[in-house]
Amino acid sequence: MSTSERLQIAILGGTGNVGRGLALRWAHAGHDVRVGSRSAEKAAQACSELNAQLECDAVRSGSNREVAAAAPIVVLSVPYAAQRATVEEVRDLLEGKILIDTTVPLVPPKVARVQLPNGGSAVAAIQELLGSAVKVVSAFQNVSAHLLLELKHEVDCDVLVCGDDVAARETVIGLIADIGLRGVHAGPIANSAAAEALTSLLISINARYKVPGAGIRITGLQNP
Amino acid sequence: MSTSERLQIAILGGTGNVGRGLALRWAHAGHDVRVGSRSAEKAAQACSELNAQLECDAVRSGSNREVAAAAPIVVLSVPYAAQRATVEEVRDLLEGKILIDTTVPLVPPKVARVQLPNGGSAVAAIQELLGSAVKVVSAFQNVSAHLLLELKHEVDCDVLVCGDDVAARETVIGLIADIGLRGVHAGPIANSAAAEALTSLLISINARYKVPGAGIRITGLQNP
Repeated sequence: MSTSERLQIAILGGTGNVGRGLALRWAHAGHDVRVGSRSAEKAAQACSELNAQLECDAVRSGSNREVAAAAPIVVLSVPYAAQRATVEEVRDLLEGKILIDTTVPLVPPKVARVQLPNGGSAVAAIQELLGSAVKVVSAFQNVSAHLLLELKHEVDCDVLVCGDDVAARETVIGLIADIGLRGVHAGPIANSAAAEALTSLLISINARYKVPGAGIRITGLQNP
Repeated sequence: MSTSERLQIAILGGTGNVGRGLALRWAHAGHDVRVGSRSAEKAAQACSELNAQLECDAVRSGSNREVAAAAPIVVLSVPYAAQRATVEEVRDLLEGKILIDTTVPLVPPKVARVQLPNGGSAVAAIQELLGSAVKVVSAFQNVSAHLLLELKHEVDCDVLVCGDDVAARETVIGLIADIGLRGVHAGPIANSAAAEALTSLLISINARYKVPGAGIRITGLQNP
């Protein structure tokens, strides 16, 4: 299932925890990773920290538009409040590409309580905005960012992967395997609503059980 | 965590798969179980089949009102379309009790696609309807009914337990432990939206991976 070729991956919002964690792990797996930010300086700063951790200059940086222009796979890892504006900023650069959207529609301060956005899914709303020319795939909503950031630690959870284009989902599942996680086909982009809502439930579990990163695994599959 | 006393449990819609599975397992665990139905005859029929499987006369039956009147713990396991009418039918008998609502707002025929009800959660809507005199707890949305019905099989999944009353959730988690499953405190009743939506996602996984009963486990807890 894992990807055999070296892929170019642009991470918009690559200075946040999820973005840095994914950049670190994909670069470590051998992919060509570029982290972007609204501010190219912030991206450069995150980039040099990542390269220090990787002990090589594997990651490059740029503005969101610069990195999005260069890569066939674009990852969105910005706060919910910045999701739509970031997509609008790079919209003309996304045609024909896969957009992996990690957005969770958390509404602070009540982040441990499910608060659904209009329509139910923040990611499905982006697929609707972009139309079928962009293959939006929802993933990583339920993965603890701080676990991703510790390269030495295995991350004990699965990744729910939703999207209307099955081949695009398959590509993303390969990229997930490259960082040692299992991605699971979880249906059309509308199903992202479940993965997004689940994040608040996991935050609630973290608080109740005083643990740092509750996650989920899918049981009952034949190849666990 | 498991319950030390014998509890009276009424199962409304006890003739369906989830209802029969729960009746079977709770009776087997030693609880005093009564299955109800709109039709007392149908309930009696399900009851005698359950007792045949248990090889004793542990389960009793009656109309929904008869069984609800007799028990401090009432379980709702009817199709989404019958949820509200069934609650209305027994409403005056629920005061001061725990109502375990297993409802999943599936909208046939597209049951593998998340379709959220108004407000997001079918169970939260029932808590709102009943007010604080009834402690509504959401559970079992993600447990495969056919696995529950095979007493010999361990069920490999966790049960997400949502509810605004923590003590009521704790009671339900004890009852879940009695049938060999782990219940997990998953926050307020609003969070039931995530568990309910997850069911369509699991149905989608069943179809994609050709398995009969995908489920979920929570990872990252200290006492797994």
